Amino acid sequence: MTAHLVTGIGELVTFDPRYEGPLGLVEDAALVIADGRIAWTGRSATAPAADTRQDLHGAAVLPGFVDSHTHLVFAGDRSAEFEARAAGRRYTGGGIATTVAATRAASTEQLTADARALAAEARRQGTTTLEIKSGYGLDIPTEERLLRVAGTLTTETTYLGAHVVPAGVDRTDYLALVTGPMLAACAPLARWADVFCEPGSPVAFDEDESRAVLTAAAAAGLGLRVHGNQLGPGPGARLAVELGAASVDHCTHLSDADVTALADTAPHGGPVATLLPGVELSTRSPFPDARRLLDAGVEVALATDCNPGTCYSTSMPLMIALAVTLMGMTTGEAVRAATLAGARALRRDDIGHLRVGARADLCVLDAPSHTHLAYRPGVPLVRTLDLPATVGRAGDR
Amino acid sequence: MTAHLVTGIGELVTFDPRYEGPLGLVEDAALVIADGRIAWTGRSATAPAADTRQDLHGAAVLPGFVDSHTHLVFAGDRSAEFEARAAGRRYTGGGIATTVAATRAASTEQLTADARALAAEARRQGTTTLEIKSGYGLDIPTEERLLRVAGTLTTETTYLGAHVVPAGVDRTDYLALVTGPMLAACAPLARWADVFCEPGSPVAFDEDESRAVLTAAAAAGLGLRVHGNQLGPGPGARLAVELGAASVDHCTHLSDADVTALADTAPHGGPVATLLPGVELSTRSPFPDARRLLDAGVEVALATDCNPGTCYSTSMPLMIALAVTLMGMTTGEAVRAATLAGARALRRDDIGHLRVGARADLCVLDAPSHTHLAYRPGVPLVRTLDLPATVGRAGDR
Repeated sequence: MTAHLVTGIGELVTFDPRYEGPLGLVEDAALVIADGRIAWTGRSATAPAADTRQDLHGAAVLPGFVDSHTHLVFAGDRSAEFEARAAGRRYTGGGIATTVAATRAASTEQLTADARALAAEARRQGTTTLEIKSGYGLDIPTEERLLRVAGTLTTETTYLGAHVVPAGVDRTDYLALVTGPMLAACAPLARWADVFCEPGSPVAFDEDESRAVLTAAAAAGLGLRVHGNQLGPGPGARLAVELGAASVDHCTHLSDADVTALADTAPHGGPVATLLPGVELSTRSPFPDARRLLDAGVEVALATDCNPGTCYSTSMPLMIALAVTLMGMTTGEAVRAATLAGARALRRDDIGHLRVGARADLCVLDAPSHTHLAYRPGVPLVRTLDLPATVGRAGDR
Repeated sequence: MTAHLVTGIGELVTFDPRYEGPLGLVEDAALVIADGRIAWTGRSATAPAADTRQDLHGAAVLPGFVDSHTHLVFAGDRSAEFEARAAGRRYTGGGIATTVAATRAASTEQLTADARALAAEARRQGTTTLEIKSGYGLDIPTEERLLRVAGTLTTETTYLGAHVVPAGVDRTDYLALVTGPMLAACAPLARWADVFCEPGSPVAFDEDESRAVLTAAAAAGLGLRVHGNQLGPGPGARLAVELGAASVDHCTHLSDADVTALADTAPHGGPVATLLPGVELSTRSPFPDARRLLDAGVEVALATDCNPGTCYSTSMPLMIALAVTLMGMTTGEAVRAATLAGARALRRDDIGHLRVGARADLCVLDAPSHTHLAYRPGVPLVRTLDLPATVGRAGDR
């Protein structure tokens, strides 16, 4: 094992309480990587000797982004639907059903190649950990295929058979499938289960159905996640708290009781509130009230929700910029939401920070500070960092 | 002179009336470049022979973006001001005065290197023509220096001595300087003159002052541009129409009479309304009403306003995405605004389209259609296109 020293870091974001402020900032910093982990951090002037070294000439370094909510494995394109929405035209294309049909028809090779390209695109924008959901199969063989493809890209795989009730299938029959044979087939391929809990939607799942999905998944050994409170008020956040889910995602329409429940359980590992502002941007919808959650003490994460229908973006830097400019978050809060809070939403303590022992998942900016992620919106600031092979593997699968 | 054939263009945006719709779209297209100009466009199947060729494998090709409003030459960083605004803190740093002080103190070499880096950053995001203003000098030697630096990067240089009245200088004295000796020194270095017309601001220029600045500039042979109606209602758009300016920029607060005046003169080369949504995003302000302008028949352009205070972005793709998602424009309208309308705002007919005879300024996307610029927000989709040196120079200086 060799040690690699990175010096000349203009600003290092560590989340290490030994350092400055809530981000654990070190200026004029250095770090040492060994065996794919952070072995040392501190001021450049006090850096230890190492086997190899490189200088970043003042670049800022953050933990790699943790994108804790994506639907990255799918086939087909829904740009015509996007275009129609932009033009204010009614679109009768079929929404998710379009993607389900295309995904079922696609070969595993094609699905893998497309998902790999999107994961590489995310990586170029600083994302080092991706959660990836199934949910465009809605039958056993395709859901299994999607999870196998996702498993080639990440360990954070999520079974989302309960995405929507497919057209022409009886709700009760589908619920029995999702909580029975489909769950049995998919549980060995997934770390998590998720449900689209939205009682106002004819295709999504109401409170009782969502509880059935999540309870069965927990019994099968899966961790829980919830799509909740996206399109209107609903039981999503409450169920997430009740059932010990790691995250409730969207959170656009929360009651005061929802916010209180999330805040009360936050110090004890309760659900993270994961906001997905790319969805509101792409669907021209009101943004969730991030300040209300933060001011109440809820842990807020940001993720892309990358999917072909409501937000076809892999860009965590854009989510940070939107959070600051349109959702009233500070740049520090947004950076935490895209890193440490994302890791908490995945119940991971080895990523999302750069304390000693963390995975050496780095995001290097062509800029002197993390503020530039919001101060310079739209500009591709993430720089590729080539580490010697001898330091061990960094970056998630 | 040799001819170079580009084939395999999934979608070509030409603005050529021979082709489909308002964008002049050709699918499965090809084009020929000779002497740095478009020599032929059409379907791949009917492409003529050429000396050299390359295949784009289905990529969309658009005219390179025309960013008709930037303040690209400056020194210093105002991220602390941005950060304070994001945190809702009062900031007493000094705004434009901070940048003026840093710019006056900077060497021409440093200003050139920094501006060149920003221009290259813009180029990587598809911008092939930049307008660049002075305005951070506010004294004769620095304004001259800024225009010389700008002139190394573009022919579209704009004298903006009338950016603000510098601190400690008498308004009347400064107006005499800007319309007298400073104009005389700067006019040979600029194609355009601009004024920050905003009667509500203590540092900007009111109607009479703005008319004096523009009239003197026109007499010195400069084309006219106006910063108008940004912070509140004002005479900017009206003055732009009255004095035959090429563009009035910002247009956030227009009266019905302003919109009518812009619409009435639009068919006869009247001012383009240039919207700068990155400013509203970065300053958390209401966006201009693009639909009202478009529906009235005004020519609407999009530009970045790249500057260190109110929008430090070089990203024309972001401006397109914001225009579609937050300002109600269609993707076609936004693409036109970022290309053809930007060219009109600079009174250029050789750029902003890909009709035969146009400069071969291309924007190649890692995507099958122009829609993806808004459908995939934040994702760096612009691909570098390496043309053989023998086809002549493409891209603005």
